[in-house]
Amino acid sequence: MAITHAQGYAVHKPSKDDYKFELTKYELEPLTSDRITVAVECCGVCGSDTHTITGGWGPFETKFVVSGHEVVGKVVEVGDKVTEFKVGDRVGVGAQVSSCKECKACKNDNETYCMGHITHGYNTHWAEGDEHQGGYSTYIRAQEGFVFKIPEALSSNDAASMLCGGLTVFSPLVRNGAGPGKKVGIVGLGGLGHYGVLFGAALGAEVTVFSRSDAKKEDALRLGAKRFVATQNKGFEKDLQQEFDVIISTASASSLPLDELLSTLKIEKKFIMVGMPEDGLKITPQTLSGNAAALASSHLGNSREMRQMLELAAEKGLKPMIEVIPMKDVAQAHKKIQDSSVRYRTVLTQDIEQQ
Amino acid sequence: MAITHAQGYAVHKPSKDDYKFELTKYELEPLTSDRITVAVECCGVCGSDTHTITGGWGPFETKFVVSGHEVVGKVVEVGDKVTEFKVGDRVGVGAQVSSCKECKACKNDNETYCMGHITHGYNTHWAEGDEHQGGYSTYIRAQEGFVFKIPEALSSNDAASMLCGGLTVFSPLVRNGAGPGKKVGIVGLGGLGHYGVLFGAALGAEVTVFSRSDAKKEDALRLGAKRFVATQNKGFEKDLQQEFDVIISTASASSLPLDELLSTLKIEKKFIMVGMPEDGLKITPQTLSGNAAALASSHLGNSREMRQMLELAAEKGLKPMIEVIPMKDVAQAHKKIQDSSVRYRTVLTQDIEQQ
Repeated sequence: MAITHAQGYAVHKPSKDDYKFELTKYELEPLTSDRITVAVECCGVCGSDTHTITGGWGPFETKFVVSGHEVVGKVVEVGDKVTEFKVGDRVGVGAQVSSCKECKACKNDNETYCMGHITHGYNTHWAEGDEHQGGYSTYIRAQEGFVFKIPEALSSNDAASMLCGGLTVFSPLVRNGAGPGKKVGIVGLGGLGHYGVLFGAALGAEVTVFSRSDAKKEDALRLGAKRFVATQNKGFEKDLQQEFDVIISTASASSLPLDELLSTLKIEKKFIMVGMPEDGLKITPQTLSGNAAALASSHLGNSREMRQMLELAAEKGLKPMIEVIPMKDVAQAHKKIQDSSVRYRTVLTQDIEQQ
Repeated sequence: MAITHAQGYAVHKPSKDDYKFELTKYELEPLTSDRITVAVECCGVCGSDTHTITGGWGPFETKFVVSGHEVVGKVVEVGDKVTEFKVGDRVGVGAQVSSCKECKACKNDNETYCMGHITHGYNTHWAEGDEHQGGYSTYIRAQEGFVFKIPEALSSNDAASMLCGGLTVFSPLVRNGAGPGKKVGIVGLGGLGHYGVLFGAALGAEVTVFSRSDAKKEDALRLGAKRFVATQNKGFEKDLQQEFDVIISTASASSLPLDELLSTLKIEKKFIMVGMPEDGLKITPQTLSGNAAALASSHLGNSREMRQMLELAAEKGLKPMIEVIPMKDVAQAHKKIQDSSVRYRTVLTQDIEQQ
C-alpha cells in the first residue's frame, strides 16, 4: 500500500530554552518519478537542528519542524524513473534532498552550491511548494542523487552521523588536499571536529587539534591526532608559524584567537569555518595579509565526496564516538549540544511504529 | 666619495589634514656588503604613504618619515658582496628592502611573508636598529634581492608606479591563475585597480571592473576591461552568479556590497582584498558558504613576480595612466589620493640636488 503520511517528533513553535517535541502526523510530499521513500531506522542530531528549532537562524519556514538530516533506513518505495535503488536497499540521506540538476554548479559536480532550487533536509519546500520534513520521523522522501548506499561494513548508527557531520568536514579536507605529507589543523573537538580528526588522519594527513583547554586531549589522540594544542595557553601559536596546509574550524568564530590561529597557516592557505554560529566576526585585511591567509567557508559536500567518505570509513573501519538513544529522547540530545556535553554526536534510533 | 647622507621631503609629525613636508637632511644606514645605494630619479606615491604620514596606521616608528617606496634610479654604490648590479645600472626598489633570507617563507620564494626581520620601504628599521627612509629623497639603500633591473623599453616614470601598485595586484593575479580562459573581477578603479585591469588583460584573462558609478567606464575599457559594472545599480550581480575565478578588491572593504560581490565568484574561489583600509568589516561564515568563497588578502609579491611583471610590461608595451609632477609638490599628490581625483597614480620626479 502506498505511503502517504509520516509521523515525527515535531517542534511547533521555536523556543530558546525548552525543547518541546510532539509526535505529529503529517502528509508526505508526493512520490514523483525521481523520488525515493526511506523508512527511517536512525537519525543523527546535528547542531543545525538546534539552531533551527530554537529559532536562532530565524522563524520556521514550514508550519512546524520535524528536524533531522542524518538518516539511515531502508528504501520502501521508488519513483518510476529511479534507476539506482530498489526496495530493501539500506541507504543514507543527508542535509540536502534535491537540487535543480541544470545550473552550472550542478553540472560541475557542485550540486551543494546549486543556483536553482535546493530542498534542504527539513524546514524547507520543494520547488513545487510542498513542505519537506526531516528524519526524527517514520519516513522521508528524497530525490535520487541525494540517496546513498551504506557500505555493508558500516553500522547504521555510525553511518548516520557521518551524513552531515562527517561530510561537512570531509569535503573541505579533500578539496584542500588533506593526505600524506600535509598538515591539517582542526579547531574545536565536537560533533564536526571529531570527524575532522578521524577523516583527516584516515586520509593520511598529520592532524593537530586546537581546543580551548586540555580536557579533550585524550579523545583527540585516540581519534588519530598527532598533536593537541590548548589555545588558552598564551603564545600557543609561536612554535607553529606557517605550519598548516589547511585549518578547519568547527568552533564559534567570534570567540576564537583568530589572529594567532591564522598565523599558523602556510602562505595563501585557507581557514575554513564550517560551524555556522549565529554571531559574526570582525576582520580587517591586515588580519589576513601577514601570510596571505584566506578566511573561507564550505557547505556540506557533493555526492562523489559522500560516496568517497562512506567507502573510506568502511575500508578503514573508522569508529566515530557517538551516543545512541531512542528517538523519543531527542530533547536530551539537544540539551547536550547546548551545554557541549555530548561526546561527540547523538544518534536517535527509531521508536515510532511504522505502518 | 662615499655617500653618507640623503636629503628628502620629510613629515615630522603625523597630521590628518595638512601635509607638511620639510626638506630634511639625514644620515643613511651603513652600506653593508649586501646593500646597494640608489640615486633616486623618480618615486611613485602610494595610498599607504598617505595612511602612514597621516598617522592612520599608527604613530611613526622613526623620528620623522620620508615616505615613498616606488623608486627608480641609478645604482651609485654597491656593497662588496653584491654580484648582480654595478654602478650605473637603472634599477627599481619597491616597498620591501630586506628580509631574513633564512626562514621557511624566504626559502620558499615567499620573502614578502618573511618570518624574521623585514625592512619595509620607510618608517622602519633594519635588523641592526638603523632607521630606513624612503624615496621622496636623493638616495635610498636596499638589500640585494630587493633591487630590480628596469627593462630598456620601460620609462622610469611608468616603471616606478608598478613597483608597489603594480606588484600588489600582479602577484595575486598570477597566483590565482589569471590567464587565457579565466575571468577576473577588479573592484575599484584607482592606483591599484587600474593596474589590475592592465595586467589582468595583459595576462590574457577576461577582466570585469566593478566600480560604484559609471564615471570611470571609459578608462576601464581603454585599459583592457571587457565589462564594466556599476555597483550602485541594484541587482548588478544577478547576471554574474558564480562567474569569476578570482576577484581582486582594491576598494575600502567596509563600504562594499560584499554579499553581492562574493556571489559572483565560482565555487571555492578567492576575494582578495589588497586595499588596506583603516576600518574593518564584519562577516559571518554564512556570507561565504553560498559558494564556499574565501575572503583573502595578499601582500606585495615576490622577486620572481616583480621580474615577471616588469618583463610583461616591457614586452607588451603597457602604459599605466599616471600623473608626473616635481617631487616638491608631493603634498598635492596626497590631496588627490585623499579626494580620489588622481588618475590613477602620481610619480614624483627628482628636484633636489644630488651630491
